[in-house]
Amino acid sequence: MISVFPVEGLPEVHAGDKIADLVLQAVRLEDGDVVVITQKIVSKAEGRVVPIDPADPQARRRLVLSESVRVLRERDELIISETRHGFVCANAGVDLSNVGHGQAALLPVDADRSARHIRDALRARSGLEVAVIISDTFGRAWRHGLTDVAIGCAGIAAVVDLRGTTDATGRELAATEVCVVDEIASAAELAKGKATGVPVVIVRGIDPNWFRESSVKAEIVRPYAGDLFR
Amino acid sequence: MISVFPVEGLPEVHAGDKIADLVLQAVRLEDGDVVVITQKIVSKAEGRVVPIDPADPQARRRLVLSESVRVLRERDELIISETRHGFVCANAGVDLSNVGHGQAALLPVDADRSARHIRDALRARSGLEVAVIISDTFGRAWRHGLTDVAIGCAGIAAVVDLRGTTDATGRELAATEVCVVDEIASAAELAKGKATGVPVVIVRGIDPNWFRESSVKAEIVRPYAGDLFR
Repeated sequence: MISVFPVEGLPEVHAGDKIADLVLQAVRLEDGDVVVITQKIVSKAEGRVVPIDPADPQARRRLVLSESVRVLRERDELIISETRHGFVCANAGVDLSNVGHGQAALLPVDADRSARHIRDALRARSGLEVAVIISDTFGRAWRHGLTDVAIGCAGIAAVVDLRGTTDATGRELAATEVCVVDEIASAAELAKGKATGVPVVIVRGIDPNWFRESSVKAEIVRPYAGDLFR
Repeated sequence: MISVFPVEGLPEVHAGDKIADLVLQAVRLEDGDVVVITQKIVSKAEGRVVPIDPADPQARRRLVLSESVRVLRERDELIISETRHGFVCANAGVDLSNVGHGQAALLPVDADRSARHIRDALRARSGLEVAVIISDTFGRAWRHGLTDVAIGCAGIAAVVDLRGTTDATGRELAATEVCVVDEIASAAELAKGKATGVPVVIVRGIDPNWFRESSVKAEIVRPYAGDLFR
């Protein structure tokens, strides 16, 4: 059985805060827990919050373009672009919600590294084997509605390769490379309650075979060359 | 807290089987449970399994095209197309795994209707308010790895509109229409163990406010006209 529960009582996060310490003060972790952390508080802790002029309608667009390597589509206020990390998402992850007025949160420079630092600190302070996922909320081509996905991870496989294993009838499965970190990020979102601002969720009971070193960059991000939809 | 657990001990499903009865014989449901059912057993129960000549390399391609209204991309053996339902996925959901040799499973004709029938039967036989999601495994543009999504649902909001609610700082959130049925399908996948063939997973503890009539077709499928990526 998998259980998914929010970490209650975390304080507001500011630049320089140690997220691992805040998590350990708020919840009793166990071996094998996956700690899913909303990108926003990682960006805040890392000082990835920049001023933005609320009176200038072009300020947000300039900021989005400065975070992008390539614009895929633009319509009204929506820009779908590819970020420096290789993510394709709305407005390059630039977010004006849950930050102060006149401020915008940018994505972490390297969310896999952010995840690794937090995981290392959790491990060092608790002695536990836990994994960390940094999540953000992305739209999808072809389907309405947003879902949470992983933008960084540490200590857990991003993609689990079931290719070559057999199905229940003994036939080899052709293509079942499952993006388990995105699925875990989505599961975490269900327990989060966005409007109430719970930024950390624990997912307990994940298959222990999935715990290994990995990264979103290496296993999920599709390179521009060879991508069918860019 | 949300808990996610597989339903063990389900028999092999055949055409004409009543999935609601099989589920109720295998698990004790509770009010508010979401029953996530793999598309494959719904297709089998509904007789959506067709013969396919394993010796004819073009047979699968013809079948995929007959299930499609529009091909988006084709490369080697992979066809990304739009199905009659409006889903964009690989090979129009035609699946040769977990069915007999020389057979292919097609997607249900109307998976929202399938979900509604199963939900109605579960409710009638148990007296419980439960929701049903039919899930399938789709790839995504721009991200490696597959995740489970909802292709049909009943009794639960497909998309929860948090637009207009305020974030923790009191500012209005701009765009947080969360596709909770896709997130629930993904959470269910984590407990499924594809290789061991568990086709039904229970997700317990979902926000009771999300229980309402809804459908994947009405709330998730983007119409071709106006879609930015077709």
